[in-house]
Amino acid sequence: MFHKLFNPSSIAVIGASRDEKKIGNVVLKNLKAMGYGGKIFPINPKEDEILGFKVYRSILDIDNNVDIAVITLSSSQSIPAVKECVKKEVPFVIVIAGGFSETGEEGKRLENELLESIKNSNTRIIGPNTVGIYIPRANVSTALTLPERTSLPGDGHIGFISQSGALGLLTMDMISEYGLGVSGFINIGNRIDMSEIELIDYFMKDDKTRSIALYLETFKEGRKFYETVKEISRKKPIILLKGGRTDAGARAASLHTGAIASNDSIVEGMAKQAGIVRAYTELELFDYAKVLAYQKPLKGDRIAIVTTAGGVGVVTSDYITSQVNGVGLKLARLKDETKMNIKKNIVPFGSAENPVDLTADGSTDQYDTVLGLLNKDENVDGIIVYALYQTAKIDIDLIDVLEKYMKEKPMVAGIMGSKIGKKMLIEAEKRKIPAYPDIERTVKAMHALYIRGKYIGD
Amino acid sequence: MFHKLFNPSSIAVIGASRDEKKIGNVVLKNLKAMGYGGKIFPINPKEDEILGFKVYRSILDIDNNVDIAVITLSSSQSIPAVKECVKKEVPFVIVIAGGFSETGEEGKRLENELLESIKNSNTRIIGPNTVGIYIPRANVSTALTLPERTSLPGDGHIGFISQSGALGLLTMDMISEYGLGVSGFINIGNRIDMSEIELIDYFMKDDKTRSIALYLETFKEGRKFYETVKEISRKKPIILLKGGRTDAGARAASLHTGAIASNDSIVEGMAKQAGIVRAYTELELFDYAKVLAYQKPLKGDRIAIVTTAGGVGVVTSDYITSQVNGVGLKLARLKDETKMNIKKNIVPFGSAENPVDLTADGSTDQYDTVLGLLNKDENVDGIIVYALYQTAKIDIDLIDVLEKYMKEKPMVAGIMGSKIGKKMLIEAEKRKIPAYPDIERTVKAMHALYIRGKYIGD
Repeated sequence: MFHKLFNPSSIAVIGASRDEKKIGNVVLKNLKAMGYGGKIFPINPKEDEILGFKVYRSILDIDNNVDIAVITLSSSQSIPAVKECVKKEVPFVIVIAGGFSETGEEGKRLENELLESIKNSNTRIIGPNTVGIYIPRANVSTALTLPERTSLPGDGHIGFISQSGALGLLTMDMISEYGLGVSGFINIGNRIDMSEIELIDYFMKDDKTRSIALYLETFKEGRKFYETVKEISRKKPIILLKGGRTDAGARAASLHTGAIASNDSIVEGMAKQAGIVRAYTELELFDYAKVLAYQKPLKGDRIAIVTTAGGVGVVTSDYITSQVNGVGLKLARLKDETKMNIKKNIVPFGSAENPVDLTADGSTDQYDTVLGLLNKDENVDGIIVYALYQTAKIDIDLIDVLEKYMKEKPMVAGIMGSKIGKKMLIEAEKRKIPAYPDIERTVKAMHALYIRGKYIGD
Repeated sequence: MFHKLFNPSSIAVIGASRDEKKIGNVVLKNLKAMGYGGKIFPINPKEDEILGFKVYRSILDIDNNVDIAVITLSSSQSIPAVKECVKKEVPFVIVIAGGFSETGEEGKRLENELLESIKNSNTRIIGPNTVGIYIPRANVSTALTLPERTSLPGDGHIGFISQSGALGLLTMDMISEYGLGVSGFINIGNRIDMSEIELIDYFMKDDKTRSIALYLETFKEGRKFYETVKEISRKKPIILLKGGRTDAGARAASLHTGAIASNDSIVEGMAKQAGIVRAYTELELFDYAKVLAYQKPLKGDRIAIVTTAGGVGVVTSDYITSQVNGVGLKLARLKDETKMNIKKNIVPFGSAENPVDLTADGSTDQYDTVLGLLNKDENVDGIIVYALYQTAKIDIDLIDVLEKYMKEKPMVAGIMGSKIGKKMLIEAEKRKIPAYPDIERTVKAMHALYIRGKYIGD
């Protein structure tokens, strides 16, 4: 049903403009710059040509199907434009303008009129008050981001639905640094028509999508959301960052999207029952979406650590096991046989206990041996492995070793540092190995696999 | 007393070697590569010249004072070498070798012998089992890090004392990314002689140092540590990452440094009483050390937020006010006058309530006006300002505006994104504006100012 939204063969930009300060210019320019391969139809009654494209007076003048119409006009002008899209039988209309229900009574009236205009039609509205969509696979972005100011992630496996445009774009800019990608981003905005529920359903069916990340300040239909998600989360992991979980946050949310946020204990109960993994920051949202896209759930809470830096093993042990400033899992007690075999393969002053410390002498071969032994030890449920390139015997081929064990027990990697660390993180990302640049994020990612495991295992 | 350790005019490398795989080669090469400006004396009875330096048979043959001797020999060979340093009246000797008390009885015996060898002398030992020191101001590093594998931070205002060498180096590599610097790094290792206590005292007196970051798995002398720190923390902030705060972590620590960690409730009580700000991860350690080096403490718990991204304001509100997955502070209730004046300066669909949302229309001038108004509002204790370059009217000169308000109420900046974000973070760091790349770290930094304020205000 949403196939054309994610794979449009033609896009109209209503309100296309020569004026570089106008949204209708930026959207057109971005579509061109991204290399969108379908047909582009700028609409402007007063122009003949913009940015090399033939301009149409009205969408009704176009002698071709239009899969998506992006309306870059003001709130009141958007309504007649939507009506024309309905006439043209455009399946998806993105209404960018704000100034609707989030601004009070008059806006609410306009919003009702907007919704009224698609009644009894097959036209669906995304928004209003939205930056629209970003679909890397189709080279489509309707967001008003200037490429020189915002990096967007590449094609990937995380479906991202956000009520907030700016938070969505910012977060995508952040994750693009290490090469993490999205299978699609939809800013639902005021979601008068298309909501998170249908989009979750789409991402469920989309083969490319392996996990679904949500930023929501409210739920459009709580009960239906719960029922949809409960069903889908058995098959695909759903991660939720719920804005407005506190009184102060809920007040902020009502200023932001005009929404009244629900009591967080209700959200928490729903998340538990529906198998949603909750995130509390924008980074956690994607850290968890990533690990759940790339790794199997944990079947138990006994974690083994492999490190070349003793102190990192100590702090990780604390963070794994502590309930406060930690995730409350356990350190695996390795079998004697495992310890004996590890001992044979590492330097005498290393540690064959958990955390296994290869010390600065640690080599790629030792990692291989130790990961093999830990994967065979039935006292180990999951493995946190630090791939630290700072010492002399470690090289980028350590990533090959990690990749080799990706099919075995759940494993999460920590790669700390700056220059080479970043290269290794990017390489890990290419191989879909979940890796993180610090201890806390590494451990929390493992914990997300535990939360998921508890739900799936039930 | 430690002046020569931080400003050595001459360094001897005992065990200097031509063999590139030997520590005695790496240390010498690093000193040269760093551009250390003092005299370098390699010691090796079998060589005449290494890396262009004249080699001495013994440290006793050197016709010059030696301020620091770095001993790159094995544990047993290190003992006679230290004895020669005592004869030469070398004030500081760094014993790199492991294989002492952390490895058992025989090592313990060697360690006692090592300590015995400096008895009744003015020679002090750093280590053993240490990577030594890194003093950017003197271009000195004795760490075995290959520059192509590890980035070290520049000169800065954080004094860093670490019981773990690898964790220390890794963390410095991480912080170097955004230009944060250290005034000195000392890896105390097994600290048979020089301990964290004396070094804290040195950093207290050192003008360059504005905050002191500690990674400790144990305390050498708990009572004395407490008394020293309680005194010093009134004047300079001290931040502690305590490895081994859980049973599992303490076991890991005992494998790592052979130390028996103390009960964490005792550490917690001491930290509260002595005014130590606790960190629980390697990133927090430096995030807090930075904010406490650059900003004044908070005098109350009422925080104002300025953002151009509504969703970021919402999530920040949640994180500020929540006790769980948050820091438990309050959102400031702005005075009516403040709100009225903000309203006049921002777009109608922006928010003049806290969080103040300038929206994508936000400009550098608006930031200036709003920060001015918030600084005048007595309902506001501290300000979290998001400097997000993604929108069209924001530019790098926003950093100038932030700098202007650095002298007023405590302010912490959040700068999220990748490419330009990083440039802005580096620029903020140059101006000593505490800035962080995500919501959680930004809010937690503000909370560190609150913890400090509560102690100082008592």
